[in-house]
Amino acid sequence: MLDPERILRLEDDRVVLLDQRRLPDEEVELVCRSAAEVAEAIRGMAVRGAPAIGIAAAYGYALAAARGDDLDEAAALLEGSRPTAANLRWALREVRGAADPEARARELHAEEVERCREMSGHAAGLLGEGTRALTHCNTGALATAGQGTALGALREAWARGLVRHVFVDETRPLLQGARLTAWELDAEGIPHTVVADAAAGHLLATGEVDCVLVGADRIAANGDTANKIGTYPLAVLAARHGVPFYVVAPTSTVDPETPSGALIPIEERDPREVSPRFAARNPAFDVTPGELISAIVTELGVHRQPYVESLPRSVTA
Amino acid sequence: MLDPERILRLEDDRVVLLDQRRLPDEEVELVCRSAAEVAEAIRGMAVRGAPAIGIAAAYGYALAAARGDDLDEAAALLEGSRPTAANLRWALREVRGAADPEARARELHAEEVERCREMSGHAAGLLGEGTRALTHCNTGALATAGQGTALGALREAWARGLVRHVFVDETRPLLQGARLTAWELDAEGIPHTVVADAAAGHLLATGEVDCVLVGADRIAANGDTANKIGTYPLAVLAARHGVPFYVVAPTSTVDPETPSGALIPIEERDPREVSPRFAARNPAFDVTPGELISAIVTELGVHRQPYVESLPRSVTA
Repeated sequence: MLDPERILRLEDDRVVLLDQRRLPDEEVELVCRSAAEVAEAIRGMAVRGAPAIGIAAAYGYALAAARGDDLDEAAALLEGSRPTAANLRWALREVRGAADPEARARELHAEEVERCREMSGHAAGLLGEGTRALTHCNTGALATAGQGTALGALREAWARGLVRHVFVDETRPLLQGARLTAWELDAEGIPHTVVADAAAGHLLATGEVDCVLVGADRIAANGDTANKIGTYPLAVLAARHGVPFYVVAPTSTVDPETPSGALIPIEERDPREVSPRFAARNPAFDVTPGELISAIVTELGVHRQPYVESLPRSVTA
Repeated sequence: MLDPERILRLEDDRVVLLDQRRLPDEEVELVCRSAAEVAEAIRGMAVRGAPAIGIAAAYGYALAAARGDDLDEAAALLEGSRPTAANLRWALREVRGAADPEARARELHAEEVERCREMSGHAAGLLGEGTRALTHCNTGALATAGQGTALGALREAWARGLVRHVFVDETRPLLQGARLTAWELDAEGIPHTVVADAAAGHLLATGEVDCVLVGADRIAANGDTANKIGTYPLAVLAARHGVPFYVVAPTSTVDPETPSGALIPIEERDPREVSPRFAARNPAFDVTPGELISAIVTELGVHRQPYVESLPRSVTA
């Protein structure tokens, strides 16, 4: 697995990120020397994935604290960089409340790595032998600076000898599946196949998929889950074909203050990511109703419907 | 509208095609001087869309007849160029049975233009005022060398003042929506928005789509419909949200000899169209069960379930 330090780390006076926009073609580090530069790296998706942007924001805040910058301004910049992920706001609350922001940021990172390990174990326990899984976007080391959420579960299940194949949605428009997930799976020798997002329905209809695993950017109190655009269609298709649909995410993604998915803000990104020439729209996330989710797996265990009762009420920290 | 002659025409000793792989950046003609060259243009998708490849194949056969080539070989080459579309086989049967293949090919083209006009009128009659439609792939002039099937219906409905907006799935991997449909709509001033294929579910869930219109590559006797990969998920989502899902296609797309969708061969194209670097799969079509289709519209009118009774039993010619 990728060393978490390679993906995201705090050095003396800077945050160093593996620039995910350049992968898989080039492995280039991006150096951020201020909270503003970290916010710009998050906005531009040099670092992405809900858990990873939470840690990046915490490090950005620690940087501002070390520099003696205006901390309200730094927090506002970081919090405003992307609107949907719960982890960003959660991580900033954690560092703002800490006596030593840098120590707390480093601790959050270590905790997130541990949470990935725990949830991966719980989720791998749901998979049978010979599993052919489908996943969407990237939920691996790159998205978490740990072993991953949904992809972490597949890593763990592979190590246990349970995984036969992983189908990877390419995940337009930014191709996190085709660029990042395939790169991670390839590096570990886990058999995989990239498909166009629109091909997932065909694979489910032809009985080639045993389960769907995805991550999450925000989970409302009732289990409604915002995740990368295209997740909701997968859940609808999985339900139609009787295929289990699992969400794997740390408790830092659960937002007990958002009662349902209708209240989760959905980021609309630059339409030119979709079409450089014609009128376009680019919603980055969609909301999957809790009723379509077979289980939500966090580091605390496997949560089942009704989620309003089974999900943790306050996030661990 | 695009002049059908610009898209596809037979000249003395050649078939001339507008090379759709180069659109919208360049408008370049591709000249084919033999059935083999036409077959290669179809295989490589310089010309695509079930009705248009039927006409192109008929012209390719006429070319072989005029050259005195081996006609069995020419027909086999053309028929083998792509496996899914019914129109290809149908058009070849028509020209092979004709005393004058060239005259019959030209007639087929003229008939297909007329069929487009008729089915567009029937389908436009299904739409209400202020319709916000979603469509997939390209089913316009480029796909038919007429006014189009699903997109022909939207053209006609726009002319009648019924269309408020058209959402266009970009249609990966070859982007027929983002490149071709957007180009056609833009040229006619019909308001449109390109979205990633995976975003259609979000638009349906948020109530922004009043109906879905698609074309077809082959319609089985029971109404099961093969169309561009990604069509089936749209039908499942439309059904979930109570949005009508219409298939618009000429009777030349209906294949009464294929009893159900399970028997339609699904073309698997070069995986490098999806990912140049990692293992990939590239099914070009999927099958939408007739039960999910609100109506199938041909030049003969609006057909409703049960399709095994309502669809024409033998194709018009």
